[in-house]
Amino acid sequence: MDIASLRNAHFEHWRLAAAIRTLTLDAVAAANSGHSGMPMGMADVATVLFDKHLRFDPKAPFWPDRDRFVLSAGHGSMLLYSLLYLTGYPDMTLEQVKNFRQWDSRTPGHPEVHHTAGVETTTGPLGQGIANSVGFAIAEEALRARFGAKVMDHHTYVIAGDGCLMEGVSQEAIALAGRQQLSRLIVLFDDNGITIDGKVSIADATDQGARFAASGWHVQAIDGHDPAAIDAALTAAKADPRPSMIACKTHIALGSAAQDTAKGHGALTDAKLIADTREVYGWEHGAFDIPADIKARWEAMGQRGAQARAEWEARLAALPAARQNEFRRVAEGEPPRKLAGAIRDVKKAAIGGKAVATRKSSEIVLEAVNAVMPETLGGSADLTGSNNTLTKDLGIFGPENRKGRYIHYGIREHGMAAAMNGMALHGGVLPYGGTFMCFADYCRPSVRLSALMGARVVYVFTHDSIGLGEDGPTHQPVEHLAMLRATPNLRVFRPADTVETAEAWELALTLPGPSVLALSRQNLKPVRTEHTNRNLSAQGAYVLAEATGKRQVVLMATGSEVEIAVAARAQLEAQGVGTRVVSIPSMELFSQADEKLRRRVLAPGAVRIAIEAGVRQPWDRWLLGDGGREAKAGFVGMSSFGASAPAEVLYEKFGITAGNVVQQALARL
Amino acid sequence: MDIASLRNAHFEHWRLAAAIRTLTLDAVAAANSGHSGMPMGMADVATVLFDKHLRFDPKAPFWPDRDRFVLSAGHGSMLLYSLLYLTGYPDMTLEQVKNFRQWDSRTPGHPEVHHTAGVETTTGPLGQGIANSVGFAIAEEALRARFGAKVMDHHTYVIAGDGCLMEGVSQEAIALAGRQQLSRLIVLFDDNGITIDGKVSIADATDQGARFAASGWHVQAIDGHDPAAIDAALTAAKADPRPSMIACKTHIALGSAAQDTAKGHGALTDAKLIADTREVYGWEHGAFDIPADIKARWEAMGQRGAQARAEWEARLAALPAARQNEFRRVAEGEPPRKLAGAIRDVKKAAIGGKAVATRKSSEIVLEAVNAVMPETLGGSADLTGSNNTLTKDLGIFGPENRKGRYIHYGIREHGMAAAMNGMALHGGVLPYGGTFMCFADYCRPSVRLSALMGARVVYVFTHDSIGLGEDGPTHQPVEHLAMLRATPNLRVFRPADTVETAEAWELALTLPGPSVLALSRQNLKPVRTEHTNRNLSAQGAYVLAEATGKRQVVLMATGSEVEIAVAARAQLEAQGVGTRVVSIPSMELFSQADEKLRRRVLAPGAVRIAIEAGVRQPWDRWLLGDGGREAKAGFVGMSSFGASAPAEVLYEKFGITAGNVVQQALARL
Repeated sequence: MDIASLRNAHFEHWRLAAAIRTLTLDAVAAANSGHSGMPMGMADVATVLFDKHLRFDPKAPFWPDRDRFVLSAGHGSMLLYSLLYLTGYPDMTLEQVKNFRQWDSRTPGHPEVHHTAGVETTTGPLGQGIANSVGFAIAEEALRARFGAKVMDHHTYVIAGDGCLMEGVSQEAIALAGRQQLSRLIVLFDDNGITIDGKVSIADATDQGARFAASGWHVQAIDGHDPAAIDAALTAAKADPRPSMIACKTHIALGSAAQDTAKGHGALTDAKLIADTREVYGWEHGAFDIPADIKARWEAMGQRGAQARAEWEARLAALPAARQNEFRRVAEGEPPRKLAGAIRDVKKAAIGGKAVATRKSSEIVLEAVNAVMPETLGGSADLTGSNNTLTKDLGIFGPENRKGRYIHYGIREHGMAAAMNGMALHGGVLPYGGTFMCFADYCRPSVRLSALMGARVVYVFTHDSIGLGEDGPTHQPVEHLAMLRATPNLRVFRPADTVETAEAWELALTLPGPSVLALSRQNLKPVRTEHTNRNLSAQGAYVLAEATGKRQVVLMATGSEVEIAVAARAQLEAQGVGTRVVSIPSMELFSQADEKLRRRVLAPGAVRIAIEAGVRQPWDRWLLGDGGREAKAGFVGMSSFGASAPAEVLYEKFGITAGNVVQQALARL
Repeated sequence: MDIASLRNAHFEHWRLAAAIRTLTLDAVAAANSGHSGMPMGMADVATVLFDKHLRFDPKAPFWPDRDRFVLSAGHGSMLLYSLLYLTGYPDMTLEQVKNFRQWDSRTPGHPEVHHTAGVETTTGPLGQGIANSVGFAIAEEALRARFGAKVMDHHTYVIAGDGCLMEGVSQEAIALAGRQQLSRLIVLFDDNGITIDGKVSIADATDQGARFAASGWHVQAIDGHDPAAIDAALTAAKADPRPSMIACKTHIALGSAAQDTAKGHGALTDAKLIADTREVYGWEHGAFDIPADIKARWEAMGQRGAQARAEWEARLAALPAARQNEFRRVAEGEPPRKLAGAIRDVKKAAIGGKAVATRKSSEIVLEAVNAVMPETLGGSADLTGSNNTLTKDLGIFGPENRKGRYIHYGIREHGMAAAMNGMALHGGVLPYGGTFMCFADYCRPSVRLSALMGARVVYVFTHDSIGLGEDGPTHQPVEHLAMLRATPNLRVFRPADTVETAEAWELALTLPGPSVLALSRQNLKPVRTEHTNRNLSAQGAYVLAEATGKRQVVLMATGSEVEIAVAARAQLEAQGVGTRVVSIPSMELFSQADEKLRRRVLAPGAVRIAIEAGVRQPWDRWLLGDGGREAKAGFVGMSSFGASAPAEVLYEKFGITAGNVVQQALARL
């Protein structure tokens, strides 16, 4: 690479980009950790993007109509932090850059949304950013259709590397974006030919351009160090009606001794290498020293955005007040006033009803919710009829109908979950999506990120146990409730009937962060017999049925096993054994309740039997803690994978029956 | 579709294929559940494959050099069961077919390996089969290179549907197979244009042929109902040096009223529809009634395979005895005699050694293991230097060198895990593969299948806690130990030093089923101070350091936290508090130990503090069960996601320190 001729050909551009490169070298050296090569390779692309195309305002990082910039290759975080510092995001001081990867800094190893202004999504786990970006672009299309181009009219730009494109989730994202013709989505592929283990060619021979084109993308390939070519490609990408991929041929760790090598991917901390690289760059400034003229030039880019934002504010202000308020409400994620009433009506109507599967209960709730909550964007990974996620009048979202509120994600649980994260982060929409609970496995990396990012996404996981029957062990979740409950910041609901399902939905739609609804395939008898406006699920667990006389046994259960607990209680009570039934729709919420309440509900001293068609791991706490005792605790559930047979046969064979519960309880009295 | 002309043009073929179609209709109707359309659509392809190409012997379903047939679209299980019954697999009686999807039948809803002879891998979770098949093909190449084409020379055939190809894991598989030029891999794509939610086009616009071609595959497109075209395409596929994809244009639920519709994908149980379809087929036989001449014709296909097998047996018998024995040893998965000695030597040498990360310990073990165990096939998802999975002299596996024993999987955790499942199921090789433990999420569906299938795969998950430091919460596992431990049949090891790592590897390589090794990034002080040949990790937990005098406290820990327990013990003992340290390298093995042993190790009555840099969920059992008591139990670990900072800062900030352990213990005395 002839750096001198690059510098000479575009001197101002070179210096702007060199600021990113040297800040990266300095911060990584200070941290003695990080990834130098990617920011050094993609500095030219990022500079042109920010200088000529990206619409952003550092003083208003949450402006709803800003362009979104997603660094899918999150390990190159110093690229982003450099850009935020240079363009003048107030929180991104030079001090923060110097504290790269240190405790409590705004500059963690990988970019974290809600932690650092200007970071749109948390990246690092590869492929997530590009898959989030599909959700960003969908949200933009949906909001543009709803509120008009005057208030919603922006692009989503992504920088993705080979790692992102090798991860399978990228294929799901690419195919979905292609089908959806998301023309505002522009992916800049850092085509540097290097991964951690060496050349890309040791593991891949894919023609990435041909691959994107096969899914309907507009594809270009350019020299990623030529500012004119970058600019022209971005302009062409914006003009094309398809999603665009620009393969930017770059040199990782450009200009250093580690250029074009796997070593260049990592932390370049050798003082001589850094000094030599500075010299190659013609950069005569000290560590972390950015000349004022260059800093000013970078800040001017942000100022251009400030003007665009002011114009946008004016356009918003010109809308009728009701439209403005509605836009602000959805942008801020406030639930509509009518939601509480809609939920209440469903709860009331459900009392005394017939047995229905909670997936069907969920559909009943969604019919009511979707009618009063126009920001919901539903969907399913090709299990619409089974997940019961499509309600009437939603319409199908697509290039034909951007007002549609239901997305056919295809058989792409991972792409769906990642897209939903993008939508939730974009704001203005509230995504929910369905699949079988067992296939929570397929979207597990994105579910974790929902939790880490606190994104308000609702996972509708139906067929939540062996109760799905004949499909067998490949489709029967057993350990999934444990896995989901073990995840910090994730709220798992396993409602027992329509009333609890309505309460779970209400909490999922109003509390911050993600929620999982675990719903049955099989019909369940209603367990709530009286209406109350109060959301009993909000405390996580509650006494569903009290013992008659002396309380000797407490049966704890969730979801489809609550009716088994109720049946077992009837048998025990008939034998004179006072038995309480506790329904625990959400262990997370119950954990947050104070100890006094928990003990009141769980009643120390009594025999405790927990009933759930999953593994015991999450139950030990409730069986043995909060006043529980080993000798008086029993579990009726699964300790192995399931099997293929009708559901009722499976419950019998695996011993999840009222009879077994009674026996377990009596044995401990 | 003009069925009559199909029938007339190839009358014998038609009747062979119609046998599959009608058995499917009859079995699904009897079960009132299942998927009729796919077997009806792909019957012609399967018939030609079995009749003209597949080398199989129903009387010897585990013959090592058989062709492998993988039904990736596992919901079409009746296609496979029909084939097994028709060709005469002894266990697959007509009775079994009639018991489709019933308890304890050989015909579960989705095919299950080790449950039904002739089923090569468990499928149903979409995309897994095609990704397993890459492993089957790699194993075949590796064994051919090692033992010669006389004993290893076969193909892997896969039937995959749109669902398989939409799942991201398929991209990882396709790209890996393309790079590896797995010429013996042939994918038959059931290109029927229909998914559960409707037409494929509602969710996908991908040109699948172009997509495969972009990764270096040989691609053909044919009429999937034309036996001559199917035969010709299979012949061409076998001749081509690339992996082959044949897009077979088919009609789902062919000949029925539900043909070419989403309804046809599911269970066709309507009696009239079935009767009408029989008529369209010109099939005048009753339910489950296969005419003797057709059955005989199908059985003849299997007899052709019996002859091929006999010839193969003769070729194997002609090898020198040592070669034969070695082939039989690896084919049966028997560990080599030298393994125990190699492990013992590593353990001995480690006593008194300096602090090393357990990922490095693992490398030390692998150097010894790989030297005496030529069946290992290692690899990493592009983290070779971090996972420490590549030992000297392994060589890199590739088209250039099929004797290489290390695979650069690329940034494809899911594809790697699924391929390893295929290798383990193929037999003759023992796969291990590395990634960061946090990215266990990316391969979670395949890890679950390893467990469900009992496949001997070793997952080398390094960077197993906040101890990885600066990379931050996206890379720091917190809930992963809980998730992995909650999974039935999965053995999780978290060794504390080199000795325990050697013991964990020994168990992983000799016990049946999959194992996970959770290994530290950071250096750990050796905790074992004396050598013993006995594998102490085999009982899951053991007393590492006994209390002096009266035992008041038991500290339990795993992996990197064992040294913290040891340090805390020293402080407590210095204060006169008798403290035992229990190391628990594997909770699964400890759970299998008898209660007496468990209580002996955990010492009821003492204060128990568990220390692990993960969530508490899996620990409640050990803290509160086996004689534990709530008031005397404490946990020092994580209850939130981690953060980006140097490891030692994080341990301090999250309170995972000897000082905190001491404080927690004293507070409970």
